[in-house]
Amino acid sequence: MRKLAFVTVLSCSCFFSNAQTKTLSGCSESSAKQQFAAEEKFDSYLKAENVDHLIKDMSARPHHVGSPGGKAVADYIYNKFKSWGYDVQMETFYVLFPTPKSRLLEMTAPTKFKASLMEKILSEDATSNQTAEQLPPYNCWSADGDVTSELVFVNYGLPEDYDYLNRLGIDVKGKIVIAKYGRSWRGIKPKVAQEHGAIGCIIYSDPKDDGYYQGDVYPKGAYKNDYGVQRGSVMDMPIYPGDPLTPGYGSTKDAKRLDRKDATNLLKIPVLPISYHDAEPLLRSLEGPVAPDDWRGALPFTYHIGPGKSTVHLKLEFNWDTKPINNIIAKMPGSERPDEWVIRGNHHDAWVNGAGDPISGQAAMMEEARAISELAKTGWKPKRTLVFCAWDGEEPSLMGSTEWCEQHAEELQQKTVAYINSDGNGRGFFGVGGSHALEGFINEVGRDVNDPETGISVLDRVRQAEIVGSAGTKRKELMNKKTISIEALGSGSDFSGFLQHLGIPSFNLGFGGEDPGGEYHSIYDSYDDYRRFKDPTFIYGVVLAKTAGRTALRLADAEALPFDFKSLYKTLNGYASEVIALADQMRESTSLENQLIKEKYYTNTIDTAEKLLPPSPKDEVPFLNFSSLQNAMNTLEKSTNHLSDALAKGKLDGAKQDEVNKALYRAEQKLLTENGLPRRGWYKHAIYAPGFYTGYGVKTLPGIREAIEQRNWKEAQDQIEIDANVIKNFSDYLDGITKTIQ
Amino acid sequence: MRKLAFVTVLSCSCFFSNAQTKTLSGCSESSAKQQFAAEEKFDSYLKAENVDHLIKDMSARPHHVGSPGGKAVADYIYNKFKSWGYDVQMETFYVLFPTPKSRLLEMTAPTKFKASLMEKILSEDATSNQTAEQLPPYNCWSADGDVTSELVFVNYGLPEDYDYLNRLGIDVKGKIVIAKYGRSWRGIKPKVAQEHGAIGCIIYSDPKDDGYYQGDVYPKGAYKNDYGVQRGSVMDMPIYPGDPLTPGYGSTKDAKRLDRKDATNLLKIPVLPISYHDAEPLLRSLEGPVAPDDWRGALPFTYHIGPGKSTVHLKLEFNWDTKPINNIIAKMPGSERPDEWVIRGNHHDAWVNGAGDPISGQAAMMEEARAISELAKTGWKPKRTLVFCAWDGEEPSLMGSTEWCEQHAEELQQKTVAYINSDGNGRGFFGVGGSHALEGFINEVGRDVNDPETGISVLDRVRQAEIVGSAGTKRKELMNKKTISIEALGSGSDFSGFLQHLGIPSFNLGFGGEDPGGEYHSIYDSYDDYRRFKDPTFIYGVVLAKTAGRTALRLADAEALPFDFKSLYKTLNGYASEVIALADQMRESTSLENQLIKEKYYTNTIDTAEKLLPPSPKDEVPFLNFSSLQNAMNTLEKSTNHLSDALAKGKLDGAKQDEVNKALYRAEQKLLTENGLPRRGWYKHAIYAPGFYTGYGVKTLPGIREAIEQRNWKEAQDQIEIDANVIKNFSDYLDGITKTIQ
Repeated sequence: MRKLAFVTVLSCSCFFSNAQTKTLSGCSESSAKQQFAAEEKFDSYLKAENVDHLIKDMSARPHHVGSPGGKAVADYIYNKFKSWGYDVQMETFYVLFPTPKSRLLEMTAPTKFKASLMEKILSEDATSNQTAEQLPPYNCWSADGDVTSELVFVNYGLPEDYDYLNRLGIDVKGKIVIAKYGRSWRGIKPKVAQEHGAIGCIIYSDPKDDGYYQGDVYPKGAYKNDYGVQRGSVMDMPIYPGDPLTPGYGSTKDAKRLDRKDATNLLKIPVLPISYHDAEPLLRSLEGPVAPDDWRGALPFTYHIGPGKSTVHLKLEFNWDTKPINNIIAKMPGSERPDEWVIRGNHHDAWVNGAGDPISGQAAMMEEARAISELAKTGWKPKRTLVFCAWDGEEPSLMGSTEWCEQHAEELQQKTVAYINSDGNGRGFFGVGGSHALEGFINEVGRDVNDPETGISVLDRVRQAEIVGSAGTKRKELMNKKTISIEALGSGSDFSGFLQHLGIPSFNLGFGGEDPGGEYHSIYDSYDDYRRFKDPTFIYGVVLAKTAGRTALRLADAEALPFDFKSLYKTLNGYASEVIALADQMRESTSLENQLIKEKYYTNTIDTAEKLLPPSPKDEVPFLNFSSLQNAMNTLEKSTNHLSDALAKGKLDGAKQDEVNKALYRAEQKLLTENGLPRRGWYKHAIYAPGFYTGYGVKTLPGIREAIEQRNWKEAQDQIEIDANVIKNFSDYLDGITKTIQ
Repeated sequence: MRKLAFVTVLSCSCFFSNAQTKTLSGCSESSAKQQFAAEEKFDSYLKAENVDHLIKDMSARPHHVGSPGGKAVADYIYNKFKSWGYDVQMETFYVLFPTPKSRLLEMTAPTKFKASLMEKILSEDATSNQTAEQLPPYNCWSADGDVTSELVFVNYGLPEDYDYLNRLGIDVKGKIVIAKYGRSWRGIKPKVAQEHGAIGCIIYSDPKDDGYYQGDVYPKGAYKNDYGVQRGSVMDMPIYPGDPLTPGYGSTKDAKRLDRKDATNLLKIPVLPISYHDAEPLLRSLEGPVAPDDWRGALPFTYHIGPGKSTVHLKLEFNWDTKPINNIIAKMPGSERPDEWVIRGNHHDAWVNGAGDPISGQAAMMEEARAISELAKTGWKPKRTLVFCAWDGEEPSLMGSTEWCEQHAEELQQKTVAYINSDGNGRGFFGVGGSHALEGFINEVGRDVNDPETGISVLDRVRQAEIVGSAGTKRKELMNKKTISIEALGSGSDFSGFLQHLGIPSFNLGFGGEDPGGEYHSIYDSYDDYRRFKDPTFIYGVVLAKTAGRTALRLADAEALPFDFKSLYKTLNGYASEVIALADQMRESTSLENQLIKEKYYTNTIDTAEKLLPPSPKDEVPFLNFSSLQNAMNTLEKSTNHLSDALAKGKLDGAKQDEVNKALYRAEQKLLTENGLPRRGWYKHAIYAPGFYTGYGVKTLPGIREAIEQRNWKEAQDQIEIDANVIKNFSDYLDGITKTIQ
């Protein structure tokens, strides 16, 4: 019922002023009115020029983990929160953090070439000359290594690329591979290379992906110039994030640490990121088959797969130091429910100056916090406690947030209503991922924030963009839907610990899409770049503050927390249908493909000049027993309907409302599995996880889906039972809430 | 019934020797046996080394229209056919043929650059140095012109590219445009540019399409090097082909000729093709918006649309001479039905040396003719007359075949059973387009020729390739189909006059797909290129001879001609469904798109920094009355069923069989419309025509389809009635044959 009313309101709001009819989930009409009034004031305090100054200040120096600039930024944030009247703590963990000691990449014979491994200082970019404080281009968590071998080009370095190499009879065992950035989280590339026996991995940015092919290069335009390099982590975070030496617990000063060789998420081979200036001679030297269409980039020659006549030498050494990381935790206590927390977070550490990543998001969060402190001066207080977190150590492996989550796990699971994350931010469209029981709620937030470029709501703008970008029946379908679907969360920012390890309802919010460029994790992610290409008027910093601020304020003040498990059911049921269909499709396509292989269709039709082998036959896909999952979904549908009906009956008395609220925000914890995912138990959420072979990219119902994708039928069946059981218990839990209400 | 039997046989032939069970449409078991025996002998006479020598001889010099080399090739062919005992004629027409007098392309200010307009002599290519006899790179039928203006990049120069320029507010009126080769027949590009007010047109080969992006460049590999240029015609052949001054009749010595300015298929603006070496400075000089993804090529810079600061000067002058073209017509008279002709043709003129285009096809046809003459020495005679045609003047505008068809229209419509065309040929897969009443027949031909690389039939090989290249339900569907569908014919070779002007059943046959490269219409389409990259052992020349030879021999000897109008009905009914669906889809998408435009979805979601205008609303699509077409299709289904049943009853007596055969091969003429297509009445076939805006690309049911695509609803309705009427009359005609049989 709540959902329907919401839809009606939204469609009305397109045509009429929405001031009179607008409702708010979890609020009575009068408290909604109060809430809107507070938000109006909140908005009035937000200033783009403050966002500008915050970004300029915090991106003035390189400020990676353990650097003087990093400590300065932490202190800056601490002092700001303090000055705004927050109860602030700097909470420090001590983590492993490797930095380069020496880097060498060269071609030795017959062609001689030594890679520059440097980014260019530009007079148009004021901070590009801070070479003394910059971390040089490197991949954090690369192994030390000194390897010399032939080179093979592996496209984006994904499992399917190696399948193709197999068909060419090219083995990377004992060789160095060169992969393009893109299509997966970067850490997947060396991991898959290592799985295939490669002894070293080079990752480069092809100009097709974020260089001149996409647009004019920096400093003329926003895209990557020939010397730009993307730094970044290559830890195997799909195993577990955080300090690799303290899996599952906080890396406090005295915590017990693993021996580095026992950390299962660290690579054994050296990995180095390079520019396309440095990649060009390497790629030009390759011989062997011409790379297929999808492998080719925008450099002006024919891409060959290799190897060539030339030998490549890669030598990397790192300082494996322990460094302090400083999380800033700033609280504004709740007036009615101080032990219920709404947590808002954004990291502050960068690879270099990080004006975009993460400072644009950090600045927006701080302006939001400042505006809330102004609001508090007017007598308004949040009913629940607001907790602002500025995380350190996100870039290497989400360390600040992960260690904090691990350290305070129990308290967080008790108290946290939701975690609201942001990261780099820019001009463009509302982007939101998160827990699907809050999908209706976040649609209401998007409804109430206006886009500064168009004057329509940020919700309508992104919804309209999806429609404009679609075609055919999909377009028609989207036109009939007045809300947006939120994305499931994989990884790539600080929500991971909250959502996937602790089962705390989470959001990841941001704006972008009109701010493309090639500065990511390079020295050119600077204030000069940001103000020219990302958000020149800093207004989208304000928009993010409005959006995340409303999200926090509404959750802090809601009488009845706006969880809608019918919405979760609907989404989850879609995922269940997907995994069932996936198994069916794979069964059919495997059977057909095996037949074609057996009957020599490939052998008969492959160009003999190309020397491509037929694909290898795959094991046939058995019928899996999905009945327990299907039955669990049926049960869940009933449970969510009952709960929804019960909640719709209206206001509960204080104590009961309190009990129900607590039960509602803790519900997502019931979706955790006891042992977590196979071979990566840190990830406990049954619905959401980063993909083992995608990294950032989410896998929903990951236990089942990845077992099917990896053709592990026994495990798939086990995971079906595990997830069915979780869903069944979750339904029981919801039935318990329904009983409480009745 | 015939069809079913055929399917069974085919699926058997995969597992057993097909020698015992193989049948032949239109032949009794005993005559099939004779036929197979003759074909076996025929095969034994075919020699790859002859194909080699023929290609080498005929590509030894440039031999374009009117050149000494062209006359030498015509004489060579004449003498060969003569020596093989054919009754040979050289039939000469006199046609307009412009060649360059002067060519100039330069950037004048502020950047200075003068285009080389030359291809490089290569020591690896023995004929590349024949500069005295080579036509320099040019587009035949460009207007004379001397224009100076700003330059605008128009992608592939198609109507939709100008729609996008409109959205950018970029007008090409009074400007010179530069377009990429590809995606359409080249003549469409200047035609559309001229329609939009451009005063000049440059066409270049982007390395993404056939240069280094695709593979190593000539002479290392087969792809286009930086100096390679594609010559070619830009006459508006979708209006009419042939000599532009004699539309609809033969350009004999004394024929009345139009004034050149009255020829409706000639351009008014100058057009010049250039290499990517020459295009690079021009494209680099452009400013303005960044070209969208689909517009970008493989040159190493950001593609902008323009204009830039630089001014481009294009000056072209041509010699508008009348030249003789020499068709060689070689006949072997039929022993039983000399007045029924099976015509086989391939052109002999080239843009330069033309080893691939057209000599590889010409050589295969000549080897086929020689083998048939050997067969004739054994006592075998064709029952119907075989006519071999070596066409001149195909490259400028299909002149040899068109003028011949126009000159002998009535006789050809009386006598011709079918026309079998080929053109350039190479290593790879069987390709066949043509009249759908002969689809079953040509599948039988493909079944009986073996592919030399794999030993399976050329039919199975291409069928398997389609299956390997498909996925999902499409793959499953194709697996269940044991035959291949043949393509509908658009234009681009000498079948046009026969099929689309005269309604004579036609085929276009060839092999390719394992012979890609960038030599097309350049000096590098040479013997050296051909023997290295196209068909190194010349065996696919033999395979084409086997295939086209069987096609000709079986049609020449069939007791009952193997036309199957049920097959035509099925295909045509598919086209009818397509045009009905097209109107429905356009109605729905137009309505939705107009709504989005009106409700400002585009305005709201376009990046303001990009200055892209919303699309313009389009007129809504009315419901068209398709009932007459649908009723005509119902009638046709019945008529084709009845005829098929009648034909299946078995052998007719001699005179009746003769009458029925004649009626069958003339049936396709009943599919001609009286006035032809709107604004291009030369094209009379109701089912097949080259697209007005695609050039080579076919449009089926072109009158209806193009009227809908061009949103001309009144004309669409008129064309529905015209085509319905044609189909109705065609059904009546088939009913007449059925009656004759009964």
